[in-house]
Amino acid sequence: MENRKENFSEWYNEIIVSSDLSDKRYPVKGMNVWLPYGWKIMQLIDGIIRREVDKNNFQEVSFPVLITRDQLDVEFEHIRGFENEIYWVTKGGKEKLDVDLALRPTSESAMYPMFSLWIRSHADLPLKTYQIVSVYRYETKHTRSFIRIREIHFFEAHTAHATYEDAEAQMEEYRRIWKNVSETLGLPYLQDIRPEWDKFPGAVYTLAFDTAMPSNRSLQIGTIHEYGTNFAKSYGIKYLKDDGTYEYANQTTFGMSERLLAAVIGIHGDDTGLILPPEIAPYQVVIVPIPGDGVDAYSKKIEDILRNSGIRVKTDDRENYTPGYKFNDWEMRGVPVRIETGVKEVSGSTVTIAMRNIKGKKTVPLDRIVDSVNDAMEKVRERIIENARKDFEKRVFMANSDQDLSAPEGLAVAYWCGSKECSDLIEQKYERAALGFRNDQNGNGKCIICGKDGKMAVFGRSY
Amino acid sequence: MENRKENFSEWYNEIIVSSDLSDKRYPVKGMNVWLPYGWKIMQLIDGIIRREVDKNNFQEVSFPVLITRDQLDVEFEHIRGFENEIYWVTKGGKEKLDVDLALRPTSESAMYPMFSLWIRSHADLPLKTYQIVSVYRYETKHTRSFIRIREIHFFEAHTAHATYEDAEAQMEEYRRIWKNVSETLGLPYLQDIRPEWDKFPGAVYTLAFDTAMPSNRSLQIGTIHEYGTNFAKSYGIKYLKDDGTYEYANQTTFGMSERLLAAVIGIHGDDTGLILPPEIAPYQVVIVPIPGDGVDAYSKKIEDILRNSGIRVKTDDRENYTPGYKFNDWEMRGVPVRIETGVKEVSGSTVTIAMRNIKGKKTVPLDRIVDSVNDAMEKVRERIIENARKDFEKRVFMANSDQDLSAPEGLAVAYWCGSKECSDLIEQKYERAALGFRNDQNGNGKCIICGKDGKMAVFGRSY
Repeated sequence: MENRKENFSEWYNEIIVSSDLSDKRYPVKGMNVWLPYGWKIMQLIDGIIRREVDKNNFQEVSFPVLITRDQLDVEFEHIRGFENEIYWVTKGGKEKLDVDLALRPTSESAMYPMFSLWIRSHADLPLKTYQIVSVYRYETKHTRSFIRIREIHFFEAHTAHATYEDAEAQMEEYRRIWKNVSETLGLPYLQDIRPEWDKFPGAVYTLAFDTAMPSNRSLQIGTIHEYGTNFAKSYGIKYLKDDGTYEYANQTTFGMSERLLAAVIGIHGDDTGLILPPEIAPYQVVIVPIPGDGVDAYSKKIEDILRNSGIRVKTDDRENYTPGYKFNDWEMRGVPVRIETGVKEVSGSTVTIAMRNIKGKKTVPLDRIVDSVNDAMEKVRERIIENARKDFEKRVFMANSDQDLSAPEGLAVAYWCGSKECSDLIEQKYERAALGFRNDQNGNGKCIICGKDGKMAVFGRSY
Repeated sequence: MENRKENFSEWYNEIIVSSDLSDKRYPVKGMNVWLPYGWKIMQLIDGIIRREVDKNNFQEVSFPVLITRDQLDVEFEHIRGFENEIYWVTKGGKEKLDVDLALRPTSESAMYPMFSLWIRSHADLPLKTYQIVSVYRYETKHTRSFIRIREIHFFEAHTAHATYEDAEAQMEEYRRIWKNVSETLGLPYLQDIRPEWDKFPGAVYTLAFDTAMPSNRSLQIGTIHEYGTNFAKSYGIKYLKDDGTYEYANQTTFGMSERLLAAVIGIHGDDTGLILPPEIAPYQVVIVPIPGDGVDAYSKKIEDILRNSGIRVKTDDRENYTPGYKFNDWEMRGVPVRIETGVKEVSGSTVTIAMRNIKGKKTVPLDRIVDSVNDAMEKVRERIIENARKDFEKRVFMANSDQDLSAPEGLAVAYWCGSKECSDLIEQKYERAALGFRNDQNGNGKCIICGKDGKMAVFGRSY
């Protein structure tokens, strides 16, 4: 296997193939096939997202994939932001369609005409919906599995509120939801308020969650957007107030995608392969029997005990493969906990447990197996988080002079005046884009380029 | 509400609107918005399907929605069957694409080029995959929610096997899976082997599961297809045998769609609204508090007890609505069990339970609430199945002479020689299409039209 730190890009591509996450040999370039193992991980990630938003009274909907050109054209700034990336359906059977239909690049223009029908009075607010769907972007850039592709597995929440303050409170709720999701996945991040020229088309402002990959490139893994009444005015989303007048609704959105999986692969993996947080591991435990008297029945018994405790477990009973081969295979696939069962374990009523990211094995009594496995999973999880945090700390650094920006590390924190001129200069000289002012750190200082008053900002070489 | 038996079509449309299942005001005709309540039911139906196929070692995948024209053109008979129904993407951004891309009408042509890469040797077989996705049909006919639409929520299983016998064994397994799914949903059906001219394009044969709606029209709610080596030959899916030669794989598919929901709505509903089998009810129990001292806390306590037992429960604490309004509202939405809590229940430590499809209420002690609710749900489920079975028996009848075919009932069973001529004659005269020979009844008799030797077949006015 490739060296993860030295040849990250090659390592990343190799691990996706060898652990059967997705297949990019599909005949449409940039559109990949989700293989069972990769799809299961993604569904478990979706499950975490669903759990967190459902707790906050979001309701799941599912909108059509096709959007008429008229719907899209309603919000000029928005469509302008996507017009070069839209796939257009122009024919049905052998007929030319009366009106061209877009494959959703995102769903504002699909949802908001319906919001304008659904929202009538104050009682209909807040409206909190989400969907988990594919979105489509006709990417002309180089594609990369889970990071830059043409069919993207996507989560999008859309809300409507009576006032701007309510919408801002929603933005706060998003940040809490994001905190839970990212912590469960063990992903460290900075919160960056995107510059005006890089915010979501049509938004008042965009707050992005940026992480850093082992390649030292930054990766946007979540965004929340305050729309104010921008879209509501275009789509006529208004509600009747008590005084008999109408008011436009204030809106927000929250987007995440399969990039979460990209970050999990890149940030937690090692030279042996994937390392999966237990909550998203298709198999949390794999039992590898070391052939011998009574071992099969003993393994089956352990499997049943663990499954009945709600643990996702598999016994690898493949013939023609040695236990050693199986150890390596499941390590490569990132299974958090491995159990070995041989004649020694059978005779002693014990099991031998190994953890994916902590060296050594330990032997525990069978009657404590569930606690022992849960404990091992918790240790794996803690180690994942700790390693990711340590690694992230190394990749984020303070740049005190513009020369510091030439450092290879991922996320450079520096004071910045906010001007496009200074940001362009940094981009030309150091190939670092302004990811925006930090949302969670509001120190003031002099702009690293022009010396005018500035605020703490982040500059990265982004994917 | 409309009378379900007399004006089924109007009743069906009305209940979909009033119980918030889907919204057909979306700007693209024939593409509807799944509303939260409808989408949740559909997801619960998907969950039943996943459970049943996962048990049988199927693996879930997710293929791209776009298919190149070349991929589709590989199997001539197959593409001919769909060519008038395909949505074509011809532009990306402002550019014309080099090759037109189809929105999947079904996924044979998406999957099988990959199967030909994945399958190398006997060890790769059987390959058992499925996906749950939208498929797209440019329908020119009148559309109808969940029955005939342009974006269809779809389950499709695709398998590959070493021999035709293995593929036939798979067809048997599909029938067992279908039996479990349809029984859980309480849907009665006949198994019909579609006539040659109505089988799936490219299949050796198609076995369909047909039910009857209260309109007396038949509804195909599931199909399984034996492909033999037809597709494998076109897409080059072959495996190396022990003797060093290559053999084409034998394939099968299984399709189901949101029509399952259409059948649940139509077959189980009554003049009051939906009746949902407990396993697919978003709320299995709704608690309606009758305002009074201590009622809120008592209701909350009951809710917690039920939720902790894994029951999907909601307390309807809306202000400004009377308990009577709430009773009607949840009845209309098909909630299996209603619990009423008032001061009488608080003081006596009891709860009052009503079932959706069985008249009367009963009061049970609080300390037996979980058993009582589970018992009530089981009774609701049994009654649903019993009513559906009785109704279906009335809609299926034996036609002994061709005049019998003019009866209004849904599914006419008759002997038939199998010829297109006799079937065309029946279609012209009685507007009944041949749904095919019965698979589960193989009696012989004289064709009801020409008098030649025939087998038992089914004729219906289908959706």
